[in-house]
Amino acid sequence: MINKLVSEIKKKNAPVVVGLDPMLNYVPEFIQKKAFDEFGETLEGAAEAIWQFNKGIVDATYDLIPAVKPQIAMYEQFGIPGMTAFKKTVDYCKEKGLVVIGDIKRGDIGSTSAAYAVGHLGKVKIGSKSYAGFDEDFATVNPYLGSDGIKPFIDVCKEENKGIFVLVKTSNPSSGEFQDQKIDGKPLYELVGEKVAQWGEECMGDEYSNVGCVVGATYPEMGKVLRKIMPKTYILVPGYGAQGGTAKDLAPYFNEDGLGAIVNSSRGIIAAYKQDKYSKFGDENYADASRQAVIDMINDINSIF
Amino acid sequence: MINKLVSEIKKKNAPVVVGLDPMLNYVPEFIQKKAFDEFGETLEGAAEAIWQFNKGIVDATYDLIPAVKPQIAMYEQFGIPGMTAFKKTVDYCKEKGLVVIGDIKRGDIGSTSAAYAVGHLGKVKIGSKSYAGFDEDFATVNPYLGSDGIKPFIDVCKEENKGIFVLVKTSNPSSGEFQDQKIDGKPLYELVGEKVAQWGEECMGDEYSNVGCVVGATYPEMGKVLRKIMPKTYILVPGYGAQGGTAKDLAPYFNEDGLGAIVNSSRGIIAAYKQDKYSKFGDENYADASRQAVIDMINDINSIF
Repeated sequence: MINKLVSEIKKKNAPVVVGLDPMLNYVPEFIQKKAFDEFGETLEGAAEAIWQFNKGIVDATYDLIPAVKPQIAMYEQFGIPGMTAFKKTVDYCKEKGLVVIGDIKRGDIGSTSAAYAVGHLGKVKIGSKSYAGFDEDFATVNPYLGSDGIKPFIDVCKEENKGIFVLVKTSNPSSGEFQDQKIDGKPLYELVGEKVAQWGEECMGDEYSNVGCVVGATYPEMGKVLRKIMPKTYILVPGYGAQGGTAKDLAPYFNEDGLGAIVNSSRGIIAAYKQDKYSKFGDENYADASRQAVIDMINDINSIF
Repeated sequence: MINKLVSEIKKKNAPVVVGLDPMLNYVPEFIQKKAFDEFGETLEGAAEAIWQFNKGIVDATYDLIPAVKPQIAMYEQFGIPGMTAFKKTVDYCKEKGLVVIGDIKRGDIGSTSAAYAVGHLGKVKIGSKSYAGFDEDFATVNPYLGSDGIKPFIDVCKEENKGIFVLVKTSNPSSGEFQDQKIDGKPLYELVGEKVAQWGEECMGDEYSNVGCVVGATYPEMGKVLRKIMPKTYILVPGYGAQGGTAKDLAPYFNEDGLGAIVNSSRGIIAAYKQDKYSKFGDENYADASRQAVIDMINDINSIF
């Protein structure tokens, strides 16, 4: 699957991913109203609103971008109807040819990690049949439980040609509380990075591994070090835009081939119509505002090469 | 919510929790057959089978135990129908007066962690209404992202009188890869334990905090140290039975008041009928085998006091 991601990034000349993290207050009034008129102010109504909102953004941007990253928490908060909207979003994006990175940050041990891997990337066996539960292309995974938690994901990635991004250094202010702690002079995130490189060797695509990692745009110095530790690892970079990371900060995350990193923006794209810069589009044309924000982001990021 | 958990543990004299982690191959043939006859060998059929299996076990054991811990991965692998079976299980256990610990191991940053917290422990606002998505009593949480990931859960716990168990030292063989790494001579799990104690002060019940932790039964020496670092923290202890932890290993997890820990068994209870020891019950009476296994487990654990 990393081969497909790299090929789509090259084809569209866009090392970016749009984070489909629909807070209800990002959804324009007219979409909310229509959904609530049909389903009431219910979980079903909210799920319909975020699904229609997503669909508009995907329709307006899919030709520009290689991938989307739906954040499952934003759907899970609406219970079963929300999970159904997540599944519809994943399916629709795949129909549109997009690579889908499920931002699920799962991670457990042994058979439990295997169940997550099967549910999100693989197929579950039921009697003589097998079915894909959510069927993303990539999933984000938490490394705190060590190799036992990661290996079951890698097994499924090998079987199904899928991939994962393992959290190494996250973009949030308190990420350092544990991740930056020094072990024999080396921060924990470097140790995790070394493990990611090792796990990745088991599951290589052509140039890069199907085992990627997450390193926040807000820590470019650390990104530089981690880039060297994991030369074959694709880095998924959150924290650009709304969280404060700039294009200049992103240069160290890329290899000399201009590949090796894919930068996420969520709020900055999907709620673009709420920014002064894009307010001329108006609520009704929120998806066009997102399209313009994607174009601007691609230009901004490509300016570093 | 910790007050309710402690009171139920005292009332039933049973510091145990039954892990409702239904692998399809734990479910007796006759239940699978009935579900598949009705829904086919589909996700819906599998979800029906695990739900009926759970219901049998809950009906046979709820008077003996204070709490259950459904492992969401085992449901999530069956997609939306699986998530619906998870929700039905949570709701049914609550109807039976059980405390429900959602073993979800979620964790993200800021608004994303807030969305998980709202979805699993709180209520999400939709227009003028608000709804509980999954509505467990406790949730397990991964600490890798630091305070930013935990605080949104604590906020919801305060509002809704709910609780969390933060992963400190997990029961699996490779848990030491990162968790045991020494930082200024002190292992990472101790540092996480100190943070858990600190977070817990913000959210106290009467004697114990609504912020608990997870420490595996397979590492009793570490349990002893962690018990001292976190005197007001309830410890959820996985790894008893099938994973190798024995009652003798568990003594250090308890305080002198005989409280402070709750021991989980999953496979050892729910698949008891597959063990030689309980095979006399037969497949049809799998739930009675689970009841006997619960009685034996309670006696075993209480033997340490």
